[in-house]
Amino acid sequence: MNILIIGGGGLIGQKLAHKLIDKGELRGQEITGMVLADIVDPALPDAPFPISAASCDIGEPEAVAGLIDKDIDVIYLLAAVVSGQAESDFDIGMRVNLHGTLNVLERCRALETTPVVVFTSSMAVFGGDVPDPIEDWTIPNPQTSYGTQKAIGELLVNDYSRKGFIDGRAFRLPTISVRPGKPNLAASSFMSSIFREPLNGQEAICPVDRDFAHFYLSPRRCVDNLICGAEIDGDAMGTSRTMMMPGRTWTIGQMIDAMTAVAGSEPARLIRFEDQPEIQAIVKGWKFDLNPAKALSLGLSADESFEENIRYYLEDDLPRA
Amino acid sequence: MNILIIGGGGLIGQKLAHKLIDKGELRGQEITGMVLADIVDPALPDAPFPISAASCDIGEPEAVAGLIDKDIDVIYLLAAVVSGQAESDFDIGMRVNLHGTLNVLERCRALETTPVVVFTSSMAVFGGDVPDPIEDWTIPNPQTSYGTQKAIGELLVNDYSRKGFIDGRAFRLPTISVRPGKPNLAASSFMSSIFREPLNGQEAICPVDRDFAHFYLSPRRCVDNLICGAEIDGDAMGTSRTMMMPGRTWTIGQMIDAMTAVAGSEPARLIRFEDQPEIQAIVKGWKFDLNPAKALSLGLSADESFEENIRYYLEDDLPRA
Ligand SMILES: NC(=O)c1ccc[n+]([C@@H]2O[C@H](COP(=O)([O-])OP(=O)(O)OC[C@H]3O[C@@H](n4cnc5c(N)ncnc54)[C@H](O)[C@@H]3O)[C@@H](O)[C@H]2O)c1
Ligand SMILES: NC(=O)c1ccc[n+]([C@@H]2O[C@H](COP(=O)([O-])OP(=O)(O)OC[C@H]3O[C@@H](n4cnc5c(N)ncnc54)[C@H](O)[C@@H]3O)[C@@H](O)[C@H]2O)c1
Repeated sequence: MNILIIGGGGLIGQKLAHKLIDKGELRGQEITGMVLADIVDPALPDAPFPISAASCDIGEPEAVAGLIDKDIDVIYLLAAVVSGQAESDFDIGMRVNLHGTLNVLERCRALETTPVVVFTSSMAVFGGDVPDPIEDWTIPNPQTSYGTQKAIGELLVNDYSRKGFIDGRAFRLPTISVRPGKPNLAASSFMSSIFREPLNGQEAICPVDRDFAHFYLSPRRCVDNLICGAEIDGDAMGTSRTMMMPGRTWTIGQMIDAMTAVAGSEPARLIRFEDQPEIQAIVKGWKFDLNPAKALSLGLSADESFEENIRYYLEDDLPRA
Repeated sequence: MNILIIGGGGLIGQKLAHKLIDKGELRGQEITGMVLADIVDPALPDAPFPISAASCDIGEPEAVAGLIDKDIDVIYLLAAVVSGQAESDFDIGMRVNLHGTLNVLERCRALETTPVVVFTSSMAVFGGDVPDPIEDWTIPNPQTSYGTQKAIGELLVNDYSRKGFIDGRAFRLPTISVRPGKPNLAASSFMSSIFREPLNGQEAICPVDRDFAHFYLSPRRCVDNLICGAEIDGDAMGTSRTMMMPGRTWTIGQMIDAMTAVAGSEPARLIRFEDQPEIQAIVKGWKFDLNPAKALSLGLSADESFEENIRYYLEDDLPRA
């Protein structure tokens, strides 16, 4: 079992690599090799099998051809530019999120080996005037270029799978929180910062009010779902390879209360509320009344409570942060 | 008002050109020029304003750049390869339907003139396990490469409109019947042949049985809807520029009865029923319980009866067929 993680230098790619190394097998087969590919140099964890880093810009078809070969069994396609950046720089979003995805799929088609491809889409595919709750059969009506590019990726993964070019599956990730590390260009960045910075003893700004509701998943559970997602039998997915990844809806207020329950009352005092209309314009268009029935029926799962998310952050990430 | 019809040599392009010439104006402005672009040489109707043909393969970005200029106000993007061909030749479907659409949109973006772009999508975007009836907010879950490429075109038209690069609108056309001319590579080709050939005194084969239900629109009404569709105010469409074009559901049996009501009992005797599993596999995946509420509310309409479709064929097309 040879695994390629494209975007392996990112948050989820790194955590996924560690978890797969711990697990030692995927789809019932021993892992015998792993490549982490990224435009930035990915950190390389120790592994009991050959593991290497590859420098690759998925916007370049030749680079993708050099990266993906017949010996790859499972590809995680995580590389993407995030929502804020794809919105402010239309060209880079199209280049990486749309053409980059196409380049990977076209390379797989040329190989004729039908690798498993796990594609990370986003709940940002949903938006606009569609009735709640959002079901697996609700139209993606994205109100950002990032969401548009992800929705296109889903359609391509479906069709390339239907044609037998890949054995694909696309998961619409909830917003990942608590995300370790630095704030990024995603409009959702604050949804981790307001816990991460205070838990690290620093101030954080919350650009929306306490009632703002959204749909979340911890990084740890996300990685578990991506592993489970690679193991689903293709036929079990029926006529669509796309589904929401489970998560839960919480308000900012509920999440702050959860942080207080786990870590005491100090961190919450470090959150300063400050309206930011630009951020609000994006995130208030996102849907949060979501019913991820299909993924739940196929074995994926959500965190039980936001206390779990806070605890996972303290256990997995606080020491390194 | 300068109009460009890409795919202007095709069935709908030709009928649209004639209708626009008769009408003389669009969006409240006198038509002052028209270009019919196609890979095949389009027939050029007489017009009281400059009208010309342009040879252009939309798969070539340079050809598209040469075709579309700042003086174009309204673009009809009708050029496409049809379902059967896109299914049997994956490359040409991707090249024309996906990259061709992207080439046109990218050229519009570069011009910064925000032209009105009318994109013809298809009900073939729908399919698979989604609950009936199909609403405007039902997920496109295409089960053909053609449907996939059209669904991607819709998403692009939406996002390019949201960003102000174009003033787009995408209509999911019902199956057009009665279509004049020769059978084509579309899996739906028989849905016109079984009326057209018998009305012309020739035999025709029906590959599905009399109970087979599907969703239809006459070419004449389709052209009226495309004109109405170009005139809709962009803001009236809300958060999505995509909608079903109205049509009506009929069974093969009901349509044959309508032909008999209009043209007597002779033509129906020329239809031979003969199961064709390959055609059935495609067309039985298509949805027919469709509710085109949004388009109806914006002024588009369906034929009143299939008798109308038969009569339009006899009036508009029989002499030339
Ligand atoms: N984290 C979330 O809240 C969230 C939510 C929904 C969807 N997703 C999706 O999940 C995936 C992983 O998310 P993440 O949080 O790990 O993101 P991340 O930004 O931490 O990682 C993405 C990685 O992709 C790399 N990358 C960017 N452009 C590239 C290119 N042209 N070629 C190769 N690599 C490139 C980046 O360098 C980065 O290491 C992404 O596809 C993202 O869109 C994430
Ligand atoms: N007729 C239907 O039942 C139906 C149903 C749903 C959607 N549609 C869509 O409506 C549109 C028009 O349909 P139609 O019935 O007139 O089809 P058509 O096949 O008669 O016309 C399409 C035209 O596009 C041209 N074309 C093909 N490839 C091209 C390329 N690379 N560059 C430039 N031109 C190219 C063809 O030469 C043809 O003249 C198409 O987009 C079609 O997918 C039609």
